Amino acid sequence: MNFTFTDKLVSLIKAKRSHVCVGLDPRIENIPNNLINNSLKKAGKIPELVAEAFFRFNQKIIDAVADHACAVKVQIAFYEQYGHLGIKCFEETINYAKEKELIVIADVKRNDIGSTVKAYSTGYLGRCVVQGIEYKSFDVDCITVNPYLGSDGILPFIEDIKKYSKGIFVLVRTSNTSAKELQDLKVGKKNVYEMIGELVNKWGQGTVGQRGYHAVGAVVGATYPEEARKLRTLMPNIYFLVPGYGAQGATAKDVVACFNKDGLGAIVNSARDIIFAYQKESWKKQFSEYQFDEAARAATIQMKEEINLSLRNADILYF
Amino acid sequence: MNFTFTDKLVSLIKAKRSHVCVGLDPRIENIPNNLINNSLKKAGKIPELVAEAFFRFNQKIIDAVADHACAVKVQIAFYEQYGHLGIKCFEETINYAKEKELIVIADVKRNDIGSTVKAYSTGYLGRCVVQGIEYKSFDVDCITVNPYLGSDGILPFIEDIKKYSKGIFVLVRTSNTSAKELQDLKVGKKNVYEMIGELVNKWGQGTVGQRGYHAVGAVVGATYPEEARKLRTLMPNIYFLVPGYGAQGATAKDVVACFNKDGLGAIVNSARDIIFAYQKESWKKQFSEYQFDEAARAATIQMKEEINLSLRNADILYF
Repeated sequence: MNFTFTDKLVSLIKAKRSHVCVGLDPRIENIPNNLINNSLKKAGKIPELVAEAFFRFNQKIIDAVADHACAVKVQIAFYEQYGHLGIKCFEETINYAKEKELIVIADVKRNDIGSTVKAYSTGYLGRCVVQGIEYKSFDVDCITVNPYLGSDGILPFIEDIKKYSKGIFVLVRTSNTSAKELQDLKVGKKNVYEMIGELVNKWGQGTVGQRGYHAVGAVVGATYPEEARKLRTLMPNIYFLVPGYGAQGATAKDVVACFNKDGLGAIVNSARDIIFAYQKESWKKQFSEYQFDEAARAATIQMKEEINLSLRNADILYF
Repeated sequence: MNFTFTDKLVSLIKAKRSHVCVGLDPRIENIPNNLINNSLKKAGKIPELVAEAFFRFNQKIIDAVADHACAVKVQIAFYEQYGHLGIKCFEETINYAKEKELIVIADVKRNDIGSTVKAYSTGYLGRCVVQGIEYKSFDVDCITVNPYLGSDGILPFIEDIKKYSKGIFVLVRTSNTSAKELQDLKVGKKNVYEMIGELVNKWGQGTVGQRGYHAVGAVVGATYPEEARKLRTLMPNIYFLVPGYGAQGATAKDVVACFNKDGLGAIVNSARDIIFAYQKESWKKQFSEYQFDEAARAATIQMKEEINLSLRNADILYF
């Protein structure tokens, strides 16, 4: 049996005693002023300035959280909005996080017809080959994908997963308020999100690792514990990527529903509450703007411990 | 009443007597050798070489088809797979097509929760603002978006549509084989794609233009004329972006179902059959590899005339 993406993920989780994923979703209005002023000196124009400030910010955050987070999730929208220089910063951030031996999740929610998805898959999970030379564009461990187009928009990703020990997380039940409009529609006795869950079970066959988990995971929002509980039962071998912690409203108690009794099965993402912790009332007294990275580290440790405590209280295997 | 995105689109369609959209989906294995060799001299390494060759190719195609196509659809996956230099080429392609006064559709199928979608919308439809200075990253007329996350993942786009006279096309019924797996599921008496169609009707309210069409359009595959006919009736004021023509199997007869009796309501996209026409049996005798642009022009004219003839035969207003 191969050492798969989920095996690598579980090893890191166990080594760090942490189910925490830190969301690197920089927003220019929340970046400390001293970083912006330094970037302004080096790169005066807008996209250059922003890319420079984002990368400096991300480096500091990654250094600060690397001991206590198993993964980082890089939301491409916050980079892509600044065009190709934003994407260059996205690449640099990915490479820096890899150097620090973190699992890197590119949150891209890509989707298309099969022949087009093949191109996305090549860029994120596979290799570009031109005139016999191989090239990796975005060297990430896994990406998020959207299932609206069905199997033929997913299978090209799965080919690369198998070939390169990578992973995907398919949107199943998202964390936002209007998730229900499509995902909760009733098809006979089942919800649309349960039908997608069954497809995810099927898509992952042939990608199972030594820990029993498939390399085709699911995005399941922490903000809906009831739906998460149903999906946990329906998808015992599927790893969940769980957004919605902190700023979106979910607590350590809520995410328990996303775990299996083996203490595995979920990585929990928080972005704003960690990377911009220095701006929060609860951390402001302790950390200045110049200590934004230390605030992020403290917030990561707190989140890690809160989740571990909730698992212990729920009689789930904990660290 | 404002001059909206659909008004601009319809003006161009009428001026050029054409419902044709050309898909700029370059694939390195189909780019003529002489272009690759020239790019190799100028930019030796992989992403640089590909970006250089793609842009030279696209310029020639755009020049050749601009008189007979109303729009170009730029599928970002084929650029994004080469990282930030691919995205730079995507930007240059967009800007070149705008110079030639074509409607530019960025086929990105983006989707996320509201606060993240705001970033995508800023990048594609709005303006980045940093320290009081505005900046446009991707200066397109409209983009494609995916509805899996419901209204709060769509509404930020609609704010920018209204502010900047832009458009979106929401995936409703896609052109691929497995589209049915989710989109055709039955919710009571309706299919999921009909439920999304109803949401699209609702989302577009307040974006209606002088021609009666909303700036929130729908992607409806030409490969499923029966579903297209149902949606045409359900969504009389919605413009359809129709993929699937040519290489994916749909004909001029099939796309008639996507039009209204006023001879409007659909733009039909073809990519491979136009941009790589020089490799097709039917054009090979007439055009050499060096004349790939002339072959693309001939294929565009042929497609334009085939569609116009089909509309006439179906008693739909034609040119």
